[in-house]
Amino acid sequence: MKAKVFVTLKPGVLDPQGKAIHHSAELLGFGNIADVRQGKYFEVEVNGGATAKEAREAAERLAKDVLANPVIEDYKVELEA
Amino acid sequence: MKAKVFVTLKPGVLDPQGKAIHHSAELLGFGNIADVRQGKYFEVEVNGGATAKEAREAAERLAKDVLANPVIEDYKVELEA
Repeated sequence: MKAKVFVTLKPGVLDPQGKAIHHSAELLGFGNIADVRQGKYFEVEVNGGATAKEAREAAERLAKDVLANPVIEDYKVELEA
Repeated sequence: MKAKVFVTLKPGVLDPQGKAIHHSAELLGFGNIADVRQGKYFEVEVNGGATAKEAREAAERLAKDVLANPVIEDYKVELEA
């Protein structure tokens, strides 16, 4: 079972990488892009025997303890059907 | 209008970063994680005047030209309602 984990900076946390991408996009002629924020994306494969509930719990725990820094980042877990 | 862009390594492309995360997770006692692959995630804010079609086109173009390396990476664009 596959879980998708999205990690994004909390609102208000500065994102210099996103700003740099936005600036480059402007220089390249992308006039209608107002803002870019960069996050991280993980595809977590949980062992086959796990139920959907167990898979979600494992992915949530991994996201909280390993993938995200909860001080400055939010995370979201989605299970793939 | 906000577009979400997911960039993932193509299947078959080695992902040492994902492997390192998987290995760390195992050392930390996450026994039921079979695999981890790392990608990138971007939230692209398109200027307000754009229609949904224009916003998607702008985000697709940005993903193809700036955010992803089409030789080794796939990308996916989702418009937020």
